[in-house]
Amino acid sequence: MSTISILGLGAMGTALAQTLLRKGHTVTIWNRTRSRAEPLAAAGAKVAESPAEAIAASELTILCVVDYAAARAVLARAEDALAGRDLVNLTNGTPGDASEFGAWVAAKGATYLDGGIMAIPPMIGEAGALILYSGSPALFERHRQALDALAESRHLGDDPGLAALYDLSLLSGMYGLFSGFLHASALVTSVGGKVGDFLPLLLPWIEAMSGTLPDLADKIDSGAHHRNVVSNIGMQKIALENIVRASEEQGVASDFIEPMLRLAGRRVAAGRAVDDISAVIEVIRKQK
Amino acid sequence: MSTISILGLGAMGTALAQTLLRKGHTVTIWNRTRSRAEPLAAAGAKVAESPAEAIAASELTILCVVDYAAARAVLARAEDALAGRDLVNLTNGTPGDASEFGAWVAAKGATYLDGGIMAIPPMIGEAGALILYSGSPALFERHRQALDALAESRHLGDDPGLAALYDLSLLSGMYGLFSGFLHASALVTSVGGKVGDFLPLLLPWIEAMSGTLPDLADKIDSGAHHRNVVSNIGMQKIALENIVRASEEQGVASDFIEPMLRLAGRRVAAGRAVDDISAVIEVIRKQK
Repeated sequence: MSTISILGLGAMGTALAQTLLRKGHTVTIWNRTRSRAEPLAAAGAKVAESPAEAIAASELTILCVVDYAAARAVLARAEDALAGRDLVNLTNGTPGDASEFGAWVAAKGATYLDGGIMAIPPMIGEAGALILYSGSPALFERHRQALDALAESRHLGDDPGLAALYDLSLLSGMYGLFSGFLHASALVTSVGGKVGDFLPLLLPWIEAMSGTLPDLADKIDSGAHHRNVVSNIGMQKIALENIVRASEEQGVASDFIEPMLRLAGRRVAAGRAVDDISAVIEVIRKQK
Repeated sequence: MSTISILGLGAMGTALAQTLLRKGHTVTIWNRTRSRAEPLAAAGAKVAESPAEAIAASELTILCVVDYAAARAVLARAEDALAGRDLVNLTNGTPGDASEFGAWVAAKGATYLDGGIMAIPPMIGEAGALILYSGSPALFERHRQALDALAESRHLGDDPGLAALYDLSLLSGMYGLFSGFLHASALVTSVGGKVGDFLPLLLPWIEAMSGTLPDLADKIDSGAHHRNVVSNIGMQKIALENIVRASEEQGVASDFIEPMLRLAGRRVAAGRAVDDISAVIEVIRKQK
């Protein structure tokens, strides 16, 4: 069992602290607003008076605050406490935020691991929760038992920005799913249908279409977007036009569909109507 | 076993005819370009010289052409053959196209059923293929055996536009999934990652997030977007901003993510930050 300090007691920080306590770890907590620490103190956590005191109290410190501005503000009050310490940062941000912050922490003499939590607070410590990590592999191995108490742990590489990148990539996949779901739901309810009645059609369809992603992944990784294409972008553009036209008929705004039509149209206009829909990735990759 | 005529021998019409022949039905075919009929004729199909001859030859006629302009052109040559006939139209279009065409066909004395094929040609006649129908329930029951030979058959209601509406709704769900997948893939490959290596993270995540759709469906059907919200739009907007910012850092255009950020932002600006992401549907519903 490890000694662990948690800096930041929002919904997620609180879930992390509760889970570690429940699994027998020694937990020290600190929060800007002290009142949020009371329920955890009652459950056995020690309450530190400052970030520096919390960092000094444990082998591992986990930082989980609302954004990088808050993360910098918290550690600015504890700069001198960082030398020789292990810090895991689970604050949400971009790969650039994580890399810059990780470099600053390392310059203060601490070892840094960044993490992206693929779960909502009630899932912490339960099956299905996943935390992606990147940064120091030594820290990851040293505290593996405590990290595994929180969620399934996956180390992606030494670059501290990788966890944020993969976190945001998975969220992008989720928001795509939600975009399609919301547009479909708006169409179905426009004729009085219930979304609950539509789900028995939609869920198996989404599962079946997820089954086509490995083929699209091959096409992206190989760049051979024109190989073994069953329904090419030229044909798919017609379907997308029908969705936009039907949405207009039904009084549904096409914000979620229009980008695919526009980007597929650009690829078709470039003479690549024979490609699969995977080729749209080439249109969203900017020239750096 | 039924006698069935197929008008239109594109990839899909050909698959329909092949499947019906293979399952022992008597099939008559017609196509504008006669050469496309040759392989099917060799497999036992009768070739009609005109749409009217094809319609007269069978108990059921299935029309499957590229769009409604083509559908109208084909039947314009066979108006007088329609009286007393059963017509299934599997041409892709909008609910409005289907309703208008169905009314025209009915005015010529034929019974009309519209269909939306949720499958690609190689899936026809195989497990997993689904065809949605709407229009005459009597026609649907009369030819159920032949229709079931093509795919799982689902009758949605009497309104001929429903099949197209649900077809396009399911396609919207698919294009949302693809949008998120393509954005995620562009992020992952921007740091040299392979999409094939990312899929073992993405696919279970998409499956887990699909598991949240029933809750979002309840919120849409009840209008209670603020009930039992774990991650509200106010918080989700921060994640969406991080995705957009990370995409800029990585040289990926945010076309697929920006609509969700913009629409969620509109809901937040309207004072509804406490709602779940389901509430974005209210923003894409236009005032009719």
